[in-house]
Amino acid sequence: MRVILGAGLRHSCYISVPVVDLTTILAGLGTILPQERILTALEDLIPYSFDGTAAMSHRPMVVAFAQTTEEVSRVVKWANESRTPLVVRGSGTGLAGGSIPTEGSVALVLSRFDRVLELDRRNLTLLTEPGVTTQTIFDEADRVGLLYPPDPGSMKISTIGGNVAGNSGGLRGLKYGVTKDYVMGFELVLPTGEVVWVGNKCVKDVAGYSLREVFIGSGGTLGIFTKILLRLLPRPAAKRTLLAVYAKMEQAAETVSAIIAHPIIPCTLEFLDRTTINCVEDYAKVGLPREAEAVLLMETDGHPAVVAEEAEIMARLAREQGALEVRVAATVEEAQRLATARRSAFAALARVAPTTILEDVTVPRSELAGMVAFVADLAKRHRLRIGTFGHMGDGNLHPTFLTNEEDEAEMHRVEMAFAEIVTETVRRGGTITGEHGVGLAKKKFLPQSVGDLNVQLMRKLKRLLDPNLILNPGKIFDCPADSSNASP
Amino acid sequence: MRVILGAGLRHSCYISVPVVDLTTILAGLGTILPQERILTALEDLIPYSFDGTAAMSHRPMVVAFAQTTEEVSRVVKWANESRTPLVVRGSGTGLAGGSIPTEGSVALVLSRFDRVLELDRRNLTLLTEPGVTTQTIFDEADRVGLLYPPDPGSMKISTIGGNVAGNSGGLRGLKYGVTKDYVMGFELVLPTGEVVWVGNKCVKDVAGYSLREVFIGSGGTLGIFTKILLRLLPRPAAKRTLLAVYAKMEQAAETVSAIIAHPIIPCTLEFLDRTTINCVEDYAKVGLPREAEAVLLMETDGHPAVVAEEAEIMARLAREQGALEVRVAATVEEAQRLATARRSAFAALARVAPTTILEDVTVPRSELAGMVAFVADLAKRHRLRIGTFGHMGDGNLHPTFLTNEEDEAEMHRVEMAFAEIVTETVRRGGTITGEHGVGLAKKKFLPQSVGDLNVQLMRKLKRLLDPNLILNPGKIFDCPADSSNASP
Repeated sequence: MRVILGAGLRHSCYISVPVVDLTTILAGLGTILPQERILTALEDLIPYSFDGTAAMSHRPMVVAFAQTTEEVSRVVKWANESRTPLVVRGSGTGLAGGSIPTEGSVALVLSRFDRVLELDRRNLTLLTEPGVTTQTIFDEADRVGLLYPPDPGSMKISTIGGNVAGNSGGLRGLKYGVTKDYVMGFELVLPTGEVVWVGNKCVKDVAGYSLREVFIGSGGTLGIFTKILLRLLPRPAAKRTLLAVYAKMEQAAETVSAIIAHPIIPCTLEFLDRTTINCVEDYAKVGLPREAEAVLLMETDGHPAVVAEEAEIMARLAREQGALEVRVAATVEEAQRLATARRSAFAALARVAPTTILEDVTVPRSELAGMVAFVADLAKRHRLRIGTFGHMGDGNLHPTFLTNEEDEAEMHRVEMAFAEIVTETVRRGGTITGEHGVGLAKKKFLPQSVGDLNVQLMRKLKRLLDPNLILNPGKIFDCPADSSNASP
Repeated sequence: MRVILGAGLRHSCYISVPVVDLTTILAGLGTILPQERILTALEDLIPYSFDGTAAMSHRPMVVAFAQTTEEVSRVVKWANESRTPLVVRGSGTGLAGGSIPTEGSVALVLSRFDRVLELDRRNLTLLTEPGVTTQTIFDEADRVGLLYPPDPGSMKISTIGGNVAGNSGGLRGLKYGVTKDYVMGFELVLPTGEVVWVGNKCVKDVAGYSLREVFIGSGGTLGIFTKILLRLLPRPAAKRTLLAVYAKMEQAAETVSAIIAHPIIPCTLEFLDRTTINCVEDYAKVGLPREAEAVLLMETDGHPAVVAEEAEIMARLAREQGALEVRVAATVEEAQRLATARRSAFAALARVAPTTILEDVTVPRSELAGMVAFVADLAKRHRLRIGTFGHMGDGNLHPTFLTNEEDEAEMHRVEMAFAEIVTETVRRGGTITGEHGVGLAKKKFLPQSVGDLNVQLMRKLKRLLDPNLILNPGKIFDCPADSSNASP
């Protein structure tokens, strides 16, 4: 399995110095953190040896908890001097292996950075520590009539620090964008241990290069966020949720095209295929039609008059494209039940097979119908079970392989299919990852997706900011310490 | 004057090698470009020796016109090898001296990259060359019912390449954001001459570090855009324009706060002070009330029902804050006349004094009223004439000094006042430039605005990508060739 995803954990990360031994690590960390926040027992290491990614894990040498910026800074300075790899994590909900510890590493856990520091209603901003959950950020904003839009599937447990490090997406991406669009600034510990503040509360700023986006989405490889300043929006006054049921997958895709072309930009346009529908129904029993080949979950939010009008148009367009049924949620509870059904898709699929491997390909919207058909055909050709769901309005699909990593023959077919999806995605002008990131799971495919020159630029940036390669080494791309022989 | 703005053109740019002589430059360029696209006569150099910035100019050694990516790549390769500074420009509308040639430089003009290459209605994207004007981009989108929102004041003549290099703002920034928010990708010539494509038509992409924002807003110092892929939006179905007239400046500021707090996010919330009102009225005669201390130009767009409702609420809030009069434009022509009045503010102010120096400070919205009052007091204290207008909803003010660079005593007071505005802006959590950029005019103030560590990071990034410092050297910050003695 590891080979499939291009990981090979033990060999994926070029570290220029020998692994530091445990005694040295404990001696160093012990001068910075109290004893009770440094764990070394096997049973304490295991929970921090994996994240949400199937078939990937690696034990850290030590697990450590920092709870102030100064502690993080001192830990990083020490790691940089002693050449100890540091892998920072929050809740470990990532789906690309991005927070899995590398060999000889300290897993630095930031879950104790759990305070919301300020909600500034005049400037519509929220200042938070990185260990706060996404749901808490949403709730804090909601409490005063504001909206924090990014809503990754794991928002109930994912931390905002992880969201920023991964530039997480979510179900509302079509209308509201992704995490990056809501990060105004942050306090960051650089790989040298220096602490820098980037950004401010201004809605416009062109004072020099934009350093924000260098760090957002860099997956813990370029710096550690210790405070995050978020932008909030006024909360939409109304919302309406619809579910359209289709006998044919293409009709769902065509409905999405028709809605965008109308043009309407709903906040959500999610889709589930038959495999996913049935798994969700087994799991959550919300009354999804088991015989349907696809369902579309649609949400529009905003001014009540607009919401009513848009819901009506979307229902009509769905019917025109051949929907068997269009349900409009009559109550808030029903709307929530439908949304929860979609949110539980991954969990529902994960129940039915020993190993669940989630893809995250994204294509230009015009390529969506073709891509969905390609995945369906692929499953047949390789005799694989693939449940597909995703953010159809964003062109972001999650074909999910329901497999068993113990079955070598099947895993070989998964490997072939995985590579074919990547090639087809790139051919259609897409990207190998819309929201889950590269981490370890996709690093093999990065050059194919962005081109060798882009990978070289990323590698240069990594070496510039982290010359000793101590922060989350071996993630996203391999980075030999010496650039002279680097090949993409 | 040059000293005031921290420029000192001849000394602002550390170039590690002696200036290349004209014969060598012509020999090199002559192998790449046809003779008629290489200008050296004094009368040909003068038009390319300045941009929209007052009291700053410098003649290039040569003016050259490239018209294909390959030509640009070859010119850059040659410049990198021969250590010839290259300053790229489009229409030269910049207001911070960003495209003024530096000593011994070749001004590389991209105005011949003037084709719109593709409008993809299914994906709502537009692919263009960099020399196309912003107005043309807007018109092309508008023709098919789509909207390209960024609308810098100079959009009729500014080029999209310059907009992307400067991450330009505009009047619609409050609701729609800035240029960066609409750039999905680009073809770029790196300072080594290599050509790279960054980005794609996907609305979500987390495949590796986000390199887009490294280049957007880098002011021609890190790369040269040769193709640009833009995101378009559905065009709003309706729009309404209002003008509110105030006897007191604070009432206008309070109206803005009340609108945002309501919450309503209009597309435009522009303001003009009395000096500006009178200059505009002298110039454009649109019937602005000369006796008012401030006017607020407000625009809401979107669904007709929402626009009607929001316009009504905004009018009520303006009256509640003490507006003497609230005009709602009855016709499209009247709305356009009001918007044009605002657009002509800078031109109108520039007519009345020999030298016009435009500030571009931006503060968190909550600090806006205080900042406006500070500027008014400052003008009195230093006996200066300052007309202030700006994007009030963004916290972005353009206090404009109406002065005369020949008057040394007054220029000294301008210098003092300019520095005081910067200090006050930073104290209020603001930035020295919201949309015009640092260029030459603000480089002296950059460390004060973003901090020394941020400037060091920017300098490292410059050296990483442009080790021979050939692209627009000396802009944004000084960058000694050798980093060992670098100080911020």
